[in-house]
Amino acid sequence: MKWMDAVFHNPSGVYLEQAPDSLLLRLRSSLGSPIKQVFLRCAPDGEQQMLEVEPAAPRPGWHCQWWEISLKLNSPVLSYRFFLVTERGCYWLTSVGLLRHLPTDHHDFQVLAEQDRCQWLEQSVFYQIFPDRFADGDPSNNVRSGEYLLDGQPVVARAWNDLPDVNQGGREFFGGDLQGIEQHLDYLGDRLGVNGIYLNPIGTAPSSHKYDVASYIEVDPHLGGESAFLDLKRAMEKRHMRLMLDIVPNHCGSQHPWFQAALADPQAETAEYFTFNPHPDDYECWLGVRTLPKLNYASQRLREVMYSGADSVMRHWLRPPYSIDGWRIDVANMLGRSGQQQLGHKIIRGMRKAVKEENPEAYFLGENFFDASSYLQGDELDATMNYRGFMMPMFHWLTGQDLEAAFGRIWGDVHPLSSEDLEIQWRTWRAAVPWAATRIQFNLLDSHDTPRLLHLTQNDRAKADVARLLLFTYPGVPCIYYGDEVGLEGGKDPDNRRPMNWEQSSWDQAELDRWCQLIRLRRSSSALGRGSFQMLCARHDTLAFLREDGEHRCLVVARRAHDQVDSLCVEPAGVPEHTEFREFFSGETRQVVLGHLEILPVLAQIWISP
Amino acid sequence: MKWMDAVFHNPSGVYLEQAPDSLLLRLRSSLGSPIKQVFLRCAPDGEQQMLEVEPAAPRPGWHCQWWEISLKLNSPVLSYRFFLVTERGCYWLTSVGLLRHLPTDHHDFQVLAEQDRCQWLEQSVFYQIFPDRFADGDPSNNVRSGEYLLDGQPVVARAWNDLPDVNQGGREFFGGDLQGIEQHLDYLGDRLGVNGIYLNPIGTAPSSHKYDVASYIEVDPHLGGESAFLDLKRAMEKRHMRLMLDIVPNHCGSQHPWFQAALADPQAETAEYFTFNPHPDDYECWLGVRTLPKLNYASQRLREVMYSGADSVMRHWLRPPYSIDGWRIDVANMLGRSGQQQLGHKIIRGMRKAVKEENPEAYFLGENFFDASSYLQGDELDATMNYRGFMMPMFHWLTGQDLEAAFGRIWGDVHPLSSEDLEIQWRTWRAAVPWAATRIQFNLLDSHDTPRLLHLTQNDRAKADVARLLLFTYPGVPCIYYGDEVGLEGGKDPDNRRPMNWEQSSWDQAELDRWCQLIRLRRSSSALGRGSFQMLCARHDTLAFLREDGEHRCLVVARRAHDQVDSLCVEPAGVPEHTEFREFFSGETRQVVLGHLEILPVLAQIWISP
Repeated sequence: MKWMDAVFHNPSGVYLEQAPDSLLLRLRSSLGSPIKQVFLRCAPDGEQQMLEVEPAAPRPGWHCQWWEISLKLNSPVLSYRFFLVTERGCYWLTSVGLLRHLPTDHHDFQVLAEQDRCQWLEQSVFYQIFPDRFADGDPSNNVRSGEYLLDGQPVVARAWNDLPDVNQGGREFFGGDLQGIEQHLDYLGDRLGVNGIYLNPIGTAPSSHKYDVASYIEVDPHLGGESAFLDLKRAMEKRHMRLMLDIVPNHCGSQHPWFQAALADPQAETAEYFTFNPHPDDYECWLGVRTLPKLNYASQRLREVMYSGADSVMRHWLRPPYSIDGWRIDVANMLGRSGQQQLGHKIIRGMRKAVKEENPEAYFLGENFFDASSYLQGDELDATMNYRGFMMPMFHWLTGQDLEAAFGRIWGDVHPLSSEDLEIQWRTWRAAVPWAATRIQFNLLDSHDTPRLLHLTQNDRAKADVARLLLFTYPGVPCIYYGDEVGLEGGKDPDNRRPMNWEQSSWDQAELDRWCQLIRLRRSSSALGRGSFQMLCARHDTLAFLREDGEHRCLVVARRAHDQVDSLCVEPAGVPEHTEFREFFSGETRQVVLGHLEILPVLAQIWISP
Repeated sequence: MKWMDAVFHNPSGVYLEQAPDSLLLRLRSSLGSPIKQVFLRCAPDGEQQMLEVEPAAPRPGWHCQWWEISLKLNSPVLSYRFFLVTERGCYWLTSVGLLRHLPTDHHDFQVLAEQDRCQWLEQSVFYQIFPDRFADGDPSNNVRSGEYLLDGQPVVARAWNDLPDVNQGGREFFGGDLQGIEQHLDYLGDRLGVNGIYLNPIGTAPSSHKYDVASYIEVDPHLGGESAFLDLKRAMEKRHMRLMLDIVPNHCGSQHPWFQAALADPQAETAEYFTFNPHPDDYECWLGVRTLPKLNYASQRLREVMYSGADSVMRHWLRPPYSIDGWRIDVANMLGRSGQQQLGHKIIRGMRKAVKEENPEAYFLGENFFDASSYLQGDELDATMNYRGFMMPMFHWLTGQDLEAAFGRIWGDVHPLSSEDLEIQWRTWRAAVPWAATRIQFNLLDSHDTPRLLHLTQNDRAKADVARLLLFTYPGVPCIYYGDEVGLEGGKDPDNRRPMNWEQSSWDQAELDRWCQLIRLRRSSSALGRGSFQMLCARHDTLAFLREDGEHRCLVVARRAHDQVDSLCVEPAGVPEHTEFREFFSGETRQVVLGHLEILPVLAQIWISP
C-alpha cells in the first residue's frame, strides 16, 4: 500500500463534527506515513490562512493515524484543503485527491452552514410515477377517445395492455390517475418499501405528459382533480411517505390562459410573460416547440406569480393542505436563459428563497442533463437529477454504450469507459459540488426521458443487477422509475412510458425481492445514507468503494465482468486486521487478513461491518 | 508519437479568427489519426449543442489535419469544448487536454467578445519601480532625518549606498523620486528597451512604501509632487512608454483625512468608510495593522468616491493630463471582503466598469497571491500578478525550494517540483481562466514583496538565466523588478528594496545584454506576444514548449540541469519535416529530421522559425 492512497478526508461522518458555529475536521493517514505536519488551508476573506492540524488519539475501529482541527464557521461556506508536509516534499489534499502541485481553489472541500439540510433524504428512497401509466383507480375520469383535439388531432384512449404508439405520443391516454396511486400505497410502502414518490406533472394540461401546462394550480380532472390529490396526500402522510411534484416553470402550454390572453392582446397583463418577435406570429418556445411557449423571467410580475409573491404557485403547493416535500424543476438548466438574457442563477436563487421560506426542509431539485455544478454551490439548487455525475458514465462503463448512443445520436460512444475513467468522471463530478449536495443528488437509472434499465443493459439481467447495486450504494438519493422493479421494458420515449404491469403472476419475485432488499438496506444503513465515500479499487472490470459512517462500513463491489481481482486491499481505509465483514446477499463472512478482504466470484457484492 | 499528443486547439492565433459577431475556430490533429468526426460542444442557454467541425484544407507551414467551424458569438462569453469520435472511442478536448471521460464545464475553452482587449500589452515589457529606491533626481525634496514621526519614531534619511535596515522598514528614505525616473528614461527605453513602467504608490503618505495612503489624489511632494509626475508622464509619452500606477483601495493610512475625521467624530461623513467596533478604540485593519484601517465598501459613498462617481479617484488618474494606462489594485484578493460581508466581486466589477468607461484599453490588474480565477472570467480583472500561475511553481521546479520556504515559513517546501508537476500546475492555472486573461497575465520573477531573483536562485546565474528565459517566453506580460538587470541582490522585505545600483562599472554588461536581447525579442515576436502555447516536453529536467502565431514559431527549451534529453519531437505540433529553426542566442541552425529537432547542451534555448 502506498501511504498516498491512505490519506483521506470527506466532509461527512467522523471526518466532520458540526456544532452551531464551530467545526471539528478530521483527516486520517496510514501509520508510519512520511507525513510530518498537516495544515488546513483556507482563505475566508481572500487571504490565505494555514492552520495547523494536530495529531490526534487513535479511535477504536480504525488502524490509522488521526489528525484533527477545530475551527469557527462564520460564513455560509467554508472552502478548505489540506497541506501535508512530508519527508519527501509537500502535498495538497483536495476533493479530487492528493496533488504534488498547487491546485486552484476549484477542488477545495466545502462545508456549508447548512451542511445537513434535508436530513430526511438520507433515509429516503423515491419512486417515480408517470401518472397516466401507473394505475387506473377511477375509470370514470379517463380521457375518452376524441374527447378533444390536441395539436389538431383527436386524443386517443388506449387499453392498459397496449403499448405506447410513437405516432401518438402525448395524445394517447391509458387512464392512470391519483386514485390508482393511492390504491397501491400498500404495494409501494409495504411490499417494495419506498418512502418517497416523485410524480411527473399533475396540473391540468391537454397532453398525457402534462408538461404543456394549462394550470399551475388545478389538478387535472383526468387524474382525479384536487380531491384525489388530497386523499393521496393524506394516505401518504399516514404512512410517513414523502411527495415531490414536478413543476414546469421554463414554459407553459399554449393553452394556458396566460398565453392565450397574451396572444389575443399584446397589451394583456400576461403579455410580458412571453417573448414575441413579432406579436403574435412568432414567439420564443422550448426547443422551438410551438405548443410550449417559453416564459420570460425578465417580467417581475411573472416572478411574483411563479415563486416570490405571497401566493405564488411554488408556495401554494408547499403549504397545507398540499404540503408537498419537494419540487423537481423541469429543465432547470434553461430556466431564465435566452441569448443575451442570462437570468438563470438569479431566478433559481429566488425560487430557492421562496421554497425554503415555506419549508426549509423541502427538497429543491433541478432537472439538468448537463453540468449543474454552478447551480449547486449552496444557495441555488439542493441537487439535480444526477444523469451525468452518476448514471450516464456508469452505463457507459457497464454496457460499453453511452446514453447518447442509446438515443441513437451520431456522437454516441460505443466503446466502453474503463474502470479508471469511470472513477475519474465520478470523482470529478462529485468534487465540483459541495458534499452537502453530493450526498443528496437524485440518482436514477432511467426516467420518463431515457430508455429503461433493461433496454440500456440489453436485457442482461446480471448487468442490470450491477446497475441497481450502484443506484442504492452510490452517494445520493436513489429513485426507481415505476415498473423497473417488475421488469418493465421500454426503449426511447414513448416506449419507456408503458403502463405498469400489474399481472403479479408474471413478475420475477426473486428479482423483485432483490429490489426490496436493497431498498431496505439503503433506508436503514447510515453508511449508505450519509457516509463518506472512498474508492478502493477501479481497475480491470472491478469497482470497489467504501461508504462509512463512523465505524459502520459498507464495502461495495461492482463488476461488469469476471476478472482477476479476487481480494481488495482495505488498508487505505484504515480497516483493522481481523475486522469481520458479512456479505449482504449471500450472508458469507470474511475477515481482513494481511490488510486484504477476499471477495466472491460474483458481480454484485456488499460487505457490511459490523 | 501518439495521435493524442497532436490534437491541439488554443483560442488564439490561427486557431481563432474573430469577426465582429462571428468566429472561426480551428483544431489540428495528426495525419492518419483515428479521428473520424469532430464536434464543437457548447450550451449557450444551458442546453447542449453539438455542432459538426468539418475537415479543412491543408495549410502551408503545417504537416497535419485541420478541422474548422464557423459560428456566431452572441453573448459576452462562448464556452466550448471539442468532442472527437474516433475508431477507439470518443474523447473530449478541453483546456486541460484530451479526456476519455466527460468533464464538467469548468475546463471549457472560453472566447470573450473582448478577446483581444488591451492589444498593446502584447508588445509590452514592464519595469517595476519602487520610487524611493530607483534614482534621486532632486535631492532638495528628500525626506530629512527627523522631519516627522512615523509610528511614534522619527523618519530616517539614508545614503544611497546604504543597505535597507530591517528595523526601519517604511521609516527610512533613500531619496528616490519621479525626477530620477525621468532622468533615466534613456536607460530604460533605449539601453534596456522596456516600454512600460509600473510604479509602486506615489500618493502622499508618511512611509517610504506609501501603501499607508494619506491622499489618493496628491502626488507625494517628496517624490516631486504633481509637476514631477506630469513631466515624467509627458516624457514617457514622447517615447511611447506606458505607465501603470498602484492604487490601494483596500485600506488607507491612519493619517488619511477620511480616517482622522471618522476617528474624531462617529457622525463624520467618512465614518461609514470604516468599520469601528466600537468607535474609536477598535476598527478593522489590513491584517491587523493599526495604521492601515480597512475601507468598508458597504458604503455607497465610498464606492462613488473611489471609483463609480464622475470625479472618482480611479477616473481622475485615467483622464488627461494624467492619462495613466493601467491600475494595479493592491490586495485585490481582500478588497470588499470581511466575514459575512463578501462584496469582492461586486466592487471589482464596479471598478472595472469605471476604468473601462474612461479607457477601454486601460490595463486592470489585481494583486492576488492566490487563485484569482474567479475574478478573471471576463467582467472583473483583466489579469493578476501571476505569482502562483507562473512564478512560484517555476522557482519550486528550478531551485527545489518554493517561495514559502524562501519566506522562511514552516510550511515551505524544500523538495523540487518535478517537470511533470510544474507542467500540470501551469496547465491547470492557465485552464482556469479564459485565454484572453492568460495572454495578459502579469508575469514576474520578483517584486517589492518577494526576495529578488538572485536570492531565490541562491546566486546561481545559470538558473537565473533559465528563470529569465521563462519570464519572456511564457504567456503573459513580462515585468522586470528594477535592478535585477544589473544584478541587484536582496532577500526578504526590506532587503529586496535596496537602492538601484548606478555604478555602471560594476555591472556585468554581458548579463545586461542578455536581458536586453530578451526584451527586444519579446517586444518584436508575435509568437511570444500573442501566440498559442503547446507543451512539447516536460520530463527529466527539461521543459520545452512552442509558442506560435500563424507560421511564426518560437520553441523554448528550459532546463534546470543537463539531462539526457538531446532532441525534441515536434511532430505533435504539426511542424513539417526539414523546417529550419535558428537558435536565438547562439545563432545555430537545425532542421527537423524524422520529426525531431536536435537541441543544444545548454540550459536556455529559443529556436525560432522562420
